[in-house]
Amino acid sequence: MTNWVYNFGDGSAEGKASMKNLLGGKGANLAEMSNLGLPVPPGFTITTEVCTAFYDNDNNYPSDLESQVKASIAVIEKTVGAVFGDEENPLLVSVRSGARVSMPGMMDTVLNLGLNDKTVEALAKKSGDERFAYDSYRRFIQMYSDVVLGVEGYIFEEILEIHKEEKGYVLDTELEAEDWKFICKAYEVKTEQELGMPFPQDVNEQLWGAIDAVFGSWMIDRAITYRRLNNIPHTWGTAVNVQSMVFGNMGDDCATGVAFTRDPSTGENAYYGEYLINAQGEDVVAGIRTPQNLTKISRLAAGSNMPSMEESMPSVYNELADVFQRLEAHYRDMQDIEFTVQQGKLWILQTRSGKRTAPAALKIAVEMVHNNIITKEEALLRVDPAALDQLLHPTLDPDAQRDILTKGLPASPGAASGMVVFNADEAEELSKDGKDVILVRIETSPEDIHGMHAARGILTSRGGMTSHAAVVARGMGRPCVSGAGALYINMGERTITVGGRTLNNHEIITIDGGTGEVMAGTVATIKPQLGEHFNELMGWADAVRTLKVRTNAETPLDALAAREFGAEGIGLCRTEHMFFDAERIINVRQMIMSETEINRRAALEKLLPVQRNDFIELFTIMKGLPVTVRLLDPPLHEFLPRAEEDYIDVANAMGVDIKFLKRRAEELHEFNPMLGHRGCRLGISFPEIYEMQARAIIEAALEVSKTLGEVIIPEIMVPLVGTRKELAILRELICKVADEIIKNSGTNLNYMVGTMIELPRAALQAAEIAHEAEFFSFGTNDLTQTTYGISRDDSGHFLDDYLKADIYEQDPFVTIDKDGVGQLMKIGVERGRATRPEIKIGICGEHGGDPASVEFCHTLGLDYVSCSPYRVPIARLAAAQAALR
Amino acid sequence: MTNWVYNFGDGSAEGKASMKNLLGGKGANLAEMSNLGLPVPPGFTITTEVCTAFYDNDNNYPSDLESQVKASIAVIEKTVGAVFGDEENPLLVSVRSGARVSMPGMMDTVLNLGLNDKTVEALAKKSGDERFAYDSYRRFIQMYSDVVLGVEGYIFEEILEIHKEEKGYVLDTELEAEDWKFICKAYEVKTEQELGMPFPQDVNEQLWGAIDAVFGSWMIDRAITYRRLNNIPHTWGTAVNVQSMVFGNMGDDCATGVAFTRDPSTGENAYYGEYLINAQGEDVVAGIRTPQNLTKISRLAAGSNMPSMEESMPSVYNELADVFQRLEAHYRDMQDIEFTVQQGKLWILQTRSGKRTAPAALKIAVEMVHNNIITKEEALLRVDPAALDQLLHPTLDPDAQRDILTKGLPASPGAASGMVVFNADEAEELSKDGKDVILVRIETSPEDIHGMHAARGILTSRGGMTSHAAVVARGMGRPCVSGAGALYINMGERTITVGGRTLNNHEIITIDGGTGEVMAGTVATIKPQLGEHFNELMGWADAVRTLKVRTNAETPLDALAAREFGAEGIGLCRTEHMFFDAERIINVRQMIMSETEINRRAALEKLLPVQRNDFIELFTIMKGLPVTVRLLDPPLHEFLPRAEEDYIDVANAMGVDIKFLKRRAEELHEFNPMLGHRGCRLGISFPEIYEMQARAIIEAALEVSKTLGEVIIPEIMVPLVGTRKELAILRELICKVADEIIKNSGTNLNYMVGTMIELPRAALQAAEIAHEAEFFSFGTNDLTQTTYGISRDDSGHFLDDYLKADIYEQDPFVTIDKDGVGQLMKIGVERGRATRPEIKIGICGEHGGDPASVEFCHTLGLDYVSCSPYRVPIARLAAAQAALR
Repeated sequence: MTNWVYNFGDGSAEGKASMKNLLGGKGANLAEMSNLGLPVPPGFTITTEVCTAFYDNDNNYPSDLESQVKASIAVIEKTVGAVFGDEENPLLVSVRSGARVSMPGMMDTVLNLGLNDKTVEALAKKSGDERFAYDSYRRFIQMYSDVVLGVEGYIFEEILEIHKEEKGYVLDTELEAEDWKFICKAYEVKTEQELGMPFPQDVNEQLWGAIDAVFGSWMIDRAITYRRLNNIPHTWGTAVNVQSMVFGNMGDDCATGVAFTRDPSTGENAYYGEYLINAQGEDVVAGIRTPQNLTKISRLAAGSNMPSMEESMPSVYNELADVFQRLEAHYRDMQDIEFTVQQGKLWILQTRSGKRTAPAALKIAVEMVHNNIITKEEALLRVDPAALDQLLHPTLDPDAQRDILTKGLPASPGAASGMVVFNADEAEELSKDGKDVILVRIETSPEDIHGMHAARGILTSRGGMTSHAAVVARGMGRPCVSGAGALYINMGERTITVGGRTLNNHEIITIDGGTGEVMAGTVATIKPQLGEHFNELMGWADAVRTLKVRTNAETPLDALAAREFGAEGIGLCRTEHMFFDAERIINVRQMIMSETEINRRAALEKLLPVQRNDFIELFTIMKGLPVTVRLLDPPLHEFLPRAEEDYIDVANAMGVDIKFLKRRAEELHEFNPMLGHRGCRLGISFPEIYEMQARAIIEAALEVSKTLGEVIIPEIMVPLVGTRKELAILRELICKVADEIIKNSGTNLNYMVGTMIELPRAALQAAEIAHEAEFFSFGTNDLTQTTYGISRDDSGHFLDDYLKADIYEQDPFVTIDKDGVGQLMKIGVERGRATRPEIKIGICGEHGGDPASVEFCHTLGLDYVSCSPYRVPIARLAAAQAALR
Repeated sequence: MTNWVYNFGDGSAEGKASMKNLLGGKGANLAEMSNLGLPVPPGFTITTEVCTAFYDNDNNYPSDLESQVKASIAVIEKTVGAVFGDEENPLLVSVRSGARVSMPGMMDTVLNLGLNDKTVEALAKKSGDERFAYDSYRRFIQMYSDVVLGVEGYIFEEILEIHKEEKGYVLDTELEAEDWKFICKAYEVKTEQELGMPFPQDVNEQLWGAIDAVFGSWMIDRAITYRRLNNIPHTWGTAVNVQSMVFGNMGDDCATGVAFTRDPSTGENAYYGEYLINAQGEDVVAGIRTPQNLTKISRLAAGSNMPSMEESMPSVYNELADVFQRLEAHYRDMQDIEFTVQQGKLWILQTRSGKRTAPAALKIAVEMVHNNIITKEEALLRVDPAALDQLLHPTLDPDAQRDILTKGLPASPGAASGMVVFNADEAEELSKDGKDVILVRIETSPEDIHGMHAARGILTSRGGMTSHAAVVARGMGRPCVSGAGALYINMGERTITVGGRTLNNHEIITIDGGTGEVMAGTVATIKPQLGEHFNELMGWADAVRTLKVRTNAETPLDALAAREFGAEGIGLCRTEHMFFDAERIINVRQMIMSETEINRRAALEKLLPVQRNDFIELFTIMKGLPVTVRLLDPPLHEFLPRAEEDYIDVANAMGVDIKFLKRRAEELHEFNPMLGHRGCRLGISFPEIYEMQARAIIEAALEVSKTLGEVIIPEIMVPLVGTRKELAILRELICKVADEIIKNSGTNLNYMVGTMIELPRAALQAAEIAHEAEFFSFGTNDLTQTTYGISRDDSGHFLDDYLKADIYEQDPFVTIDKDGVGQLMKIGVERGRATRPEIKIGICGEHGGDPASVEFCHTLGLDYVSCSPYRVPIARLAAAQAALR
């Protein structure tokens, strides 16, 4: 016989904390607290398996559930000394949902269940408080009608309002027992009118109605949506907790409250909470009365003159404080506790690990280690790596006023204010003059990069979470709001129109890349503070993780930031980003526009010293840490002139007709540039480009080796390889250039040649490709694009529909798709290592900074992940967690 | 000890015909003929393994090769009764290359080797013909100097020309023995001047020089290029044949010739060949004298009065005819034979299976079955499926005059003449008026399809062998020349400029899609004749093949053509092609431009009856054969208006402002449409489109089932699926529509829902997807694009570089890449069948009509291939060959 129901209360329970999957979080913790001997109102939990069975069997319960529930009710009756539905000494219960993880406000609760026209009188008699009894009954009728019977709440509010008006009352507290009695009757009549049948008087009918409603609420739309947004499987189901009622509203020796064992905002080790005398739990939430502080210290800090619980109920408070200590010590984590005081007696209604901000999580975890409550390993597992993002970027001051214009996508976290600027060059100029600017574009392109770097934040009206703007901004640690479609950006007139308002060039706006909000004017921000706790935790993380963490960086600024965040090398230096500098672009354009090798070589000759200098700077900053340089990757037309004056400049520099340039630009046009003439295909067609880059890398490494006295081992990476032969040809080319330079230098230098694995074919052919590659780096952006056949830049057209239809559990451009892309990675690793067991394998796609993906990379046995500088700490912690799991 | 050298001649040999890989084609057949007792000049073959060993060991021979060659020379000496280098009775030899497959003219040959200043005198004395001896010697000096010593031939031609001028000779035949003696001396002097050392007199030095040259010629550029173009691996190597010389130029009882045992053009069973009296083999080729017919019948047919060999040398001819019969009977195939008659004695120098035209191959194979020479299975393997293309398209009359303007890519076979027309609508109009037109575009788009259909041929100045124009033209069986870059097409003025000439609108041109030639004016063509042999062979093919062959077709014309060619169903009906019809496009555009579902549904309502009619026509033509209909696949913007007047039309029809339309068009723009909002992503975003299509299919099937009394089982195919969930959602949608219609019809109808497997992720997730799919169809065009990360449309920018650099063995868009795409297909088949063993699996990419890919599909165990109508016979034969192999 399956046990569908688990009892708890009275100093013991059938369940325990570790049975969360079966009993839900609330139920498991109620059982655990009962076992600890804490004062828990007795009750029972109907398991999540009932929920699953219910939905698997066309909304039918297991046949033996009813008898088990009946037996458990009898257990409560015996413990409490009251009888369910009894007209003299009635037992009242609450019915609450309780899933494996908390889904706040998503599902239904019914309180005071067991009241009817008869038992309400008994309750009045027994409590000696008729007003309390009828107040409880009217609350029950309203709640039950709403939750179980589907009668909307406003209907009851109306009745109450009309009665109050008639009587000249303002506050609910003015209503007397007779008023509530009248209201109860009116509610019952109204319910019958609405439903065509009387309000149920049978307490068992009430009970099953409520149980049905809780299980039913698992599949209502908002619950489904919540689970989708939080990646909670629908198959988990919810439990139902039936518990005898305790009342915080039976007089001034009663109270109700919520508390945290530490401060959930700051992590400070001090009790934190609120309570209300003579109230039910819902009153605290409803905000009709202002809750009072729990402790005296906090009351003083808040400047309140309402007595704290510590002062007004010192003995119960001490009892409560004792419970706090026992629960925190028992669970070895900060607890979020609900309690009720009924006529001087303390009851604990719920405990759970408390939600906390990132700084609090950090502080609590580290301090608990210091106090020997938890181990370093546990501390590492307590902090959500993704939440570290909060620590690394400025955030808006929550108390500041906001004039919200619209909301776009929260594409890159952090907040920033600045002047609206519509083009990258102006952004750069103004920034040089010390101005804060927000770069506003319909969409960005690689040519905007210098402007994005110069800006405090980026705002676009088009493109998704993984658009160019979003990806680059995250890489740079710049706040970004993308795809704010309500903005009409007029590039000609340099205005933004939104909701009838028009903002001009250089007006100030503020963006919050964490929420997607766009605001007029300046909104104050709070600077991030990393502090000692951060560094200490990171140190522990470094000690346990086996995955190395590198960064994707090509500018000295990025490289420096990444080193500060603990990067152990550069996993991806995108040389094309170096090409966009205003001083260089004209030479780059000359190179691209040339139709002959001779002319291309002439342009490359001018680029060589500049690129060499770039690498000298990077190698110097990285001081001997590994640096992987990717040779030119994007389709050439990304570098093409755009404006007419650009064409004129290039035409003059090359001494050719502008018509020739335009025809050449047309020739370079591609229908699907992502699948076009890019990556190593450029190296095959124009070997002189890769030759120049190899030369720049090797010459720089030689020079820095000499200057710094460090051993520099540059890693030269060939992008977009699909066949062994491609890499073989380019490897030969690179080695020829490199070996000659090294030979002529008279010194020694080791270097490596490797490749990106970013095409399905490369993963499948990894055994062959590994013959030519000393390292692999998974380019999971492109690999995701090709495996799914989806261009990141265009996915905005349908990604919303896909997430809504629950087709993707996660955005595959954010978290590695294990079932597709991940399989190819696994094949790539296995086959690559079969050929060359010592091959170094990493990842340098955006996924390298996503905690779930970092864990996957750990299980694949990669050597390192590489991510944008601002995600390095996240990756370090995620790697540590992966190693611990 | 490895046997590096194999002897032959004198009625026996160490090798045989089956040893081609070791002895090369020529060597193996010389051995085989020796074993047959045919008169073969004795000699030996140095194996291809020597060639491989030579290149593997830094151009060094195996150490024991020299002694083996020496021993074999001794065997020849003994057989012939002459001694190599002997000054009284010298042995002369030829040294020839001979690879596994014939590489005509690619590698080197040296004749008359063994002559020097002494042996030439002996030859003169022994032959009694001083002129012959010195003529042979001067030929040897020139050939050896050219081939082995690298002295260019024109230097010797000059000496000969000067001598002839001085003597007043016109023809070589006028030179006397003394002249040749003088010439030989002059040649020797010249060689010494050029090389700084005397012409080698040591016959062994001569022999090794020639052997070196033959092995060396394996790696010269033109040989490498030839192998690349013909997919011959470099590792095969060549053999070297050293054979005693026989002379067809020792007098009028001598002759030389080449012959086929049947007519290689027509396949007629009659000897076919040419000969020359008193000549060496090279004279036949050089074209100095006109060769004579072999048989009397052919002489009469040619109206020649030069005696045939049958008449002039009746006894040798009879001997030769006997050899023809023996060789054809022995090899059981038409033979291509070289022979020499020396002083009345017949020598056979070479035999091999003769190259032949497609009609000849067909006729010979079928007749040989009729005559019980070969089995039907052998006949099937004798005909190259790809060559059938020649039979299915009109070809240019080879005798017609051609005014060639330029040459583009041979994108779709066949030849056509017609008026130059620059847009699709005009092409359609003129074609309706009975005019033949050639549609000329810079590049084509799906909107040109009606014009392409109406045209006799298509010419573009841009795009490769796999551009839109090429793919669609092949699908329709229209000749197409693509990427003719030398054409300057001025769309505004409607002119084509090429090489200084300008062609106006409506001028006549001719294109040859088999060669890529573009010609001015009309060139006569020859119509294809399939005939009985074709039908008989196809019947045999159908009996042995296990793969079904379907066609890709959406128009009644295509479907009818495909049925005539033996298609067993439609594997791919691309519904979007039906949308481009002029009458419909406005409704399609309305649907796309609508921002609301209601407006989209209104437009779809108008499209429904039209689509239903399309399907009624197709189902009626296909008479119960399976028809797979793919739901809408391409990105919506492909249907957008282009010209201003199109915008006006749509704006009027929709009653909206043109500005709105343009903004909407801009919104639909995609950076990489191939990876964008297309395929089933449209069905997810706009379910109403797929609903309409499902409705049209099911209603049509119901109607045709009733009218025809045939059971129609439509197969509804969802494109571009990457996850199980996508298909699950759309399957439910389709089934809901379909089941309701069927229920309301009161009759019964079975239908299937399946999907394309055209993304790497779909192949990897095939086990999951198969839960929702009753059939799979591999879309290898898209699968190749995503596996390689290469857009077909853009590959033109680098494909040439790739083929030159030997990176791709074959164009992966023509033949399935087994190592990448093929692996994914294998995974897809295995995983799909694991879930659903009875799942029907086919292929409908372009590869379905490529013989090598058809064979691969057979080994994968697919159920069918689907290809364009004109490739159906090719696929039928290829499938039969695959089953036989």
